[in-house]
Amino acid sequence: MTDQATPEATLEAALAAIRPADPAALDAARERQGRLTKPAGALGVLEEVSIRLAGLAGTCPSPDPAPAAVAVFAADHGVHAQGVSPWPQEVTAQMVANFLAGGAAVNVLARQAGAAVVVVDAGVATSLEGLVPEGAVVADATAIVPEQPRLIERAVRRGSDDISVRPAMTREQAIQGLAHGIVIAGELAGAGYRCLVAGDMGIANTTASAALIAAFTGADPADVTGRGTGIDDEAHRHKVGVVRVVLARRDAENAAAPQDPIDILASVGGLEHAQIAGFILGAAAHRVPIVLDGVIAGASALVAFALAPAAVDACLAGHRSAEPGHAVALQQLGLTPLVDLELRLGEGSGAVLALPLVRSAVAVLREMATFDGAGVTEKSS
Amino acid sequence: MTDQATPEATLEAALAAIRPADPAALDAARERQGRLTKPAGALGVLEEVSIRLAGLAGTCPSPDPAPAAVAVFAADHGVHAQGVSPWPQEVTAQMVANFLAGGAAVNVLARQAGAAVVVVDAGVATSLEGLVPEGAVVADATAIVPEQPRLIERAVRRGSDDISVRPAMTREQAIQGLAHGIVIAGELAGAGYRCLVAGDMGIANTTASAALIAAFTGADPADVTGRGTGIDDEAHRHKVGVVRVVLARRDAENAAAPQDPIDILASVGGLEHAQIAGFILGAAAHRVPIVLDGVIAGASALVAFALAPAAVDACLAGHRSAEPGHAVALQQLGLTPLVDLELRLGEGSGAVLALPLVRSAVAVLREMATFDGAGVTEKSS
Repeated sequence: MTDQATPEATLEAALAAIRPADPAALDAARERQGRLTKPAGALGVLEEVSIRLAGLAGTCPSPDPAPAAVAVFAADHGVHAQGVSPWPQEVTAQMVANFLAGGAAVNVLARQAGAAVVVVDAGVATSLEGLVPEGAVVADATAIVPEQPRLIERAVRRGSDDISVRPAMTREQAIQGLAHGIVIAGELAGAGYRCLVAGDMGIANTTASAALIAAFTGADPADVTGRGTGIDDEAHRHKVGVVRVVLARRDAENAAAPQDPIDILASVGGLEHAQIAGFILGAAAHRVPIVLDGVIAGASALVAFALAPAAVDACLAGHRSAEPGHAVALQQLGLTPLVDLELRLGEGSGAVLALPLVRSAVAVLREMATFDGAGVTEKSS
Repeated sequence: MTDQATPEATLEAALAAIRPADPAALDAARERQGRLTKPAGALGVLEEVSIRLAGLAGTCPSPDPAPAAVAVFAADHGVHAQGVSPWPQEVTAQMVANFLAGGAAVNVLARQAGAAVVVVDAGVATSLEGLVPEGAVVADATAIVPEQPRLIERAVRRGSDDISVRPAMTREQAIQGLAHGIVIAGELAGAGYRCLVAGDMGIANTTASAALIAAFTGADPADVTGRGTGIDDEAHRHKVGVVRVVLARRDAENAAAPQDPIDILASVGGLEHAQIAGFILGAAAHRVPIVLDGVIAGASALVAFALAPAAVDACLAGHRSAEPGHAVALQQLGLTPLVDLELRLGEGSGAVLALPLVRSAVAVLREMATFDGAGVTEKSS
């Protein structure tokens, strides 16, 4: 899984390395939760998180999931031409600059959580010339530092094609994107990060996410297409219609030649979806927990899940997005969101907010006293 | 508001000091949220928290709500004799020892959040002799340190009376409890704590909480009585029946002589409810935000709210408890919970988990770039 390997070989190696959660560690964590000085189950979802991470690590309790690193995958979408977003496409590049200057929401939240931020140019359409601070570009993710966001350049192409007209990218480009994500996760794991967050930036990316979720779950476009970063009823109807056109085109392709998950990704996805799906696979291959953000990460996780079902054992759902497709994706993945604050921003913001909850869940299992150890009487049965 | 004042004078001074949120600061915070580099409203509940805290502080943005201090008010309940809990009453004292040894859930979570813990003996029934580590008892809350939990002794009496038979305490004892809570909040504010958390410990305290919530909201006992720390259907039916007996007794008292909020507290509440209600009033009087935990803090907040409606402007709901009475209390208070993880532990655990979210909300308003400052184009209308 180095940059020298072919993209196909990188993908194959990651898929071969992914194993399900360790049953013995899961059992040990469940048993230990039952001995801690609290009523059984009283810490609710936190208990499940601690059990899940023990299973992933293969040890009970699992190590502290820190430090964390947030990779914000930025890319543009040809479907923007269909008027699915009120924001101009240049905003993707402008927000990359904002991330690198430390002024975006994800920067503020990552500082609070003590997480490092790396921005990945996964295929921004407009020029970043003049927008990137000097010294911000680094060769790979091993060079990032908590104090200063950095940019790594992994654009497979400059924006996807318009998925309402033709596939977003070629199959080869999709595999290249997956491989980049896998390698970035491996670099961060190698650099000592013990928890990863997949964030996103890309004007119109909720449209491609809706198409991916509909394609992978069979849901109706009307049930998975949301208002993104703010559109009215009429614009929403138009957006649903565009997603219907995308799905009809993909159905015709599938009828002509049945599609595997990578074909679906290439057909209706986006460049950041490819890299985030790879990032999830890479995290799972390295048994490092990955906290998913909203609907873009959820759509990408469906790709990863289709390629390697056990990859879901490395995933935690950071938050419940206001986007309707997110709930559909989480249901398919069987994940329970940790934060439910009506966020609809992306960037990784909801997942970064969940990081202290994830650390706290593990700390409970690591540090709480047991009934016998603390001399506390258990309840009568 | 010193310990030298009479309890009545301490209460009067706190009530006189409580003012509603500052409208100018609220407006300034709303306006600033609209200029930050994100779609309007995209940070959901976090935006509301930042606005609320600006209103409380009277400045926009509000100061960082840190460091935080958690006061865990421990007390016993005479209604335990009615068999409403499967846990023996000694567990309250044993858990005080566990708090002081740092082994309880709230200790682990407070360490993660960087919050100090002070345990308040508000009326534990069984002896703490031999359970309290040497040096753990301090004279007042100004002497606490983040690294080591401390105990302050503020027991008004050793456990409340059985509220299914007679009032929990006298009116004078209720006022004394309120005054203790007010003074403790003032001590913590004076010691530089910028965010307070009200936690609780007391076997059977969900029964008194259900009675308080029913008395203050008019809800039926069946709708506000939960399973506490774990009882089956039959035990739950019994518990609802006990709360009905409590309410019938209090209705008879009220018919004989109409009760004010302090009378209701004295009649159906608990010793920790009195001190937590006072703690909320004290926080509001000092304009320090207070994060409420679950159903015990929610019931106590109804008392504070009845005495000073503007006190709610200092309150944030830390989490949504699995106890049904909690939702009823939050609705009456108009508060939206920050964390929803199916917790049903108490101790302040849910509120402490919310502390990073509260700090993050304020950090967003303090640190995020604005559209004009970052050169990001706004969406077309």
